[in-house]
Amino acid sequence: MSAEPINHPATLAAIEAAFDEYERALTTNDVAMLDTLFWQSPHTFRYGATENLQGYDAIREFRAQRPGKGLMRTIIDKSVTSFGADLAVANITFSRAGEPRIGRQSQTWARIDGQWRVVAAHVSWMDPS
Amino acid sequence: MSAEPINHPATLAAIEAAFDEYERALTTNDVAMLDTLFWQSPHTFRYGATENLQGYDAIREFRAQRPGKGLMRTIIDKSVTSFGADLAVANITFSRAGEPRIGRQSQTWARIDGQWRVVAAHVSWMDPS
Repeated sequence: MSAEPINHPATLAAIEAAFDEYERALTTNDVAMLDTLFWQSPHTFRYGATENLQGYDAIREFRAQRPGKGLMRTIIDKSVTSFGADLAVANITFSRAGEPRIGRQSQTWARIDGQWRVVAAHVSWMDPS
Repeated sequence: MSAEPINHPATLAAIEAAFDEYERALTTNDVAMLDTLFWQSPHTFRYGATENLQGYDAIREFRAQRPGKGLMRTIIDKSVTSFGADLAVANITFSRAGEPRIGRQSQTWARIDGQWRVVAAHVSWMDPS
């Protein structure tokens, strides 16, 4: 790892702010901000509950077409961990009205050209065990 | 990011080797190797199809108790992307006999003390759309 340690307070604060901005944008369907926060690369991934998207363009197209209602959710647990100065993971569990299953969202964030961006995301509902 | 670019060939080769070792260990239920490849930290996450695990100890306990059969799978698509010298994401889709849904596995790998380790993983079945 770089000289900066795991969970350096300044890095954590920056990534938590980016995470919160993403959550606000998601639940209010602020598509422009969601697009901004994803890495503009063909290597970007987003696995959603019902779709597997590879590349920024596919993710943007999905956002543009998704109905904007029913996106609100309640975060149950949240954990953010940074590695060095430029990378972090954010993991949450959440609930949503009308869905009996627990939701999980994993994001990998990287600071690219000075900006925190989601480079990979995975959202799913947990099966009953 | 660090001076080393995205997808530097030597970094990619190292993380692909670690990924392949993990896949071999998973599908043969080599629990000792799986334990080795996960970061030994309370910040480690693994969201599985039917469980949400936080911390290395919870993940290790899950591995120890899981039946060793029925873990074989066929990778459909695979993508590995490295960021700088010490971080990478690996995303695959897969199928498994007896399961009609498509599986997805996302891993975030970090090189910690010189060793590539999974710091966060998320495995799920995709809902029908």
